[in-house]
Amino acid sequence: MRFDDLLQLFVPKDRVFFPLFVKDTQNLVTISKTLVQLVNCVDPTQRRALIKEVERLEHVGDNITHEIFNELSTNFITPFDREDIHALASSIDDIADFIHGSSKRIDLYKIVEVSPAIIKLAELIETSAQELHIAVSEFGGTRDLNKIKEACVKINSIENHADDVFNMAIANLFEQEKDAIAIIKIKEILAALETATDKCEDAANVLQTILVKNA
Amino acid sequence: MRFDDLLQLFVPKDRVFFPLFVKDTQNLVTISKTLVQLVNCVDPTQRRALIKEVERLEHVGDNITHEIFNELSTNFITPFDREDIHALASSIDDIADFIHGSSKRIDLYKIVEVSPAIIKLAELIETSAQELHIAVSEFGGTRDLNKIKEACVKINSIENHADDVFNMAIANLFEQEKDAIAIIKIKEILAALETATDKCEDAANVLQTILVKNA
Amino acid sequence: MRFDDLLQLFVPKDRVFFPLFVKDTQNLVTISKTLVQLVNCVDPTQRRALIKEVERLEHVGDNITHEIFNELSTNFITPFDREDIHALASSIDDIADFIHGSSKRIDLYKIVEVSPAIIKLAELIETSAQELHIAVSEFGGTRDLNKIKEACVKINSIENHADDVFNMAIANLFEQEKDAIAIIKIKEILAALETATDKCEDAANVLQTILVKNA
Repeated sequence: MRFDDLLQLFVPKDRVFFPLFVKDTQNLVTISKTLVQLVNCVDPTQRRALIKEVERLEHVGDNITHEIFNELSTNFITPFDREDIHALASSIDDIADFIHGSSKRIDLYKIVEVSPAIIKLAELIETSAQELHIAVSEFGGTRDLNKIKEACVKINSIENHADDVFNMAIANLFEQEKDAIAIIKIKEILAALETATDKCEDAANVLQTILVKNA
Repeated sequence: MRFDDLLQLFVPKDRVFFPLFVKDTQNLVTISKTLVQLVNCVDPTQRRALIKEVERLEHVGDNITHEIFNELSTNFITPFDREDIHALASSIDDIADFIHGSSKRIDLYKIVEVSPAIIKLAELIETSAQELHIAVSEFGGTRDLNKIKEACVKINSIENHADDVFNMAIANLFEQEKDAIAIIKIKEILAALETATDKCEDAANVLQTILVKNA
Repeated sequence: MRFDDLLQLFVPKDRVFFPLFVKDTQNLVTISKTLVQLVNCVDPTQRRALIKEVERLEHVGDNITHEIFNELSTNFITPFDREDIHALASSIDDIADFIHGSSKRIDLYKIVEVSPAIIKLAELIETSAQELHIAVSEFGGTRDLNKIKEACVKINSIENHADDVFNMAIANLFEQEKDAIAIIKIKEILAALETATDKCEDAANVLQTILVKNA
């Protein structure tokens, strides 16, 4: 037990950080839903509008991140280790960045047809974002440890699944696509999507670290 | 000196975590030996069996990782900072993941001839895994600081060496291979192998962090 | 407030670590200036000499990193959390590594013409290194929080800018370059340069973590 754990007994329940994290992961759910719409959209004008929407939502997320960092610098005593609050905010920010990154690449590389693996990965990101939102909301609410752990386990298994989807997609790409430049482009997009699920796992790991420290 | 350092004076010698880490790095040594056999194997059936064995051993490692995380959540007082135990377990897990990842790619990309650079990197991973096993065993045993540092220095220098092998291999690839798709495939495998040595360095760095904190 | 924060009240002003960090970031400024010269240099012999100079300066940086780690293991009480000193030294080391990595690739891949995006990224790295040097010097000196925050904000915005330059460069590459192997090579160099700006942001984040903890 650490000195700050002792202190924490006197610290009021967190009313500052988790409400912001809940807002942040709610925004992630919205971005990832937009991503799923975007990769399923065949109309170029509508798709372009959805790409712009992902960009806008990424900025919304940036503002929440800054709000968290500001609270961190003005609160003398925090309900959890400062570095964990920092790490959680950073990894949520990373998830939004990689969703935005893959959406931007679809635009910049002038991708016309989106492959089934890209759609599948977008769906996995959406599910993972939803689980992260559940875990964070539970943490900021009644804090049912089993529910939080369950969501984290799901996020981990989604990341494994995304890994398999990514690997199979790359193998198929090498089988079927003979244009090396097309391979490079699609590989880049798949990699950005797959990394978004890695970052969800990072966020889940920070949550588990906070749980472990406050066990 | 921190409050938990004071407490630690009363903490019994670690009988839980390091035995698990020793088991974990022993498993890494076995996976990396299998990897070396695999990249040296020319018989397709036998190679496929070795790839399956790498996959099986990666699952063995996953189970040890979970065992460590379980111990972490049930032990109130830990002999080292919880976050460092978490970080060490995670980086050992990462090493196994990247070994498995490169082995899986050799399979998925239907690589027939394995280049000398791939063999060299596999051998460097094996040596690095052995040094990590030495460092971890020493930490869990008589804790001879010089031996631990020596192993960590070797892991660092192996990582530098792997970096050079990787860079030269990519340069040669660009010189000699004119098929862009072949270049992409081999580059992916070389990168996964090289990252495995990076992850060994990460594990060594966590060990050194633990040493520094408990100096 | 932690036990070590209390202790810190009795700790003399840091006379060991920040002077080394100042030396380390000064070296970063020099490496990045050399990188800018190198990418603007058209004479092969002179360019080769500049690449060698980047390599030499990277070793200088390595020695400063080791000096910091040595101080860490011999100082019982540190003015900041040991792990943050470790993390800051590691990220400065990473910046130098990626600058060296991109310079080495220009050499190994026998790049003749350097694209405007490569030059732009090298310039962004130089500006970011300068801001990091300002932030670190301020931290080790009069510690004007506003100046440090200002430099960190600039480093963050440079990283965003570098991201845009990178993305546009890749999009243009796909438009204009039809040789897939040339695309792979240039993409690798651009990626190494862009990662150097990411690592500057990591270093700025560690600095901000130290600020937050010592607020």
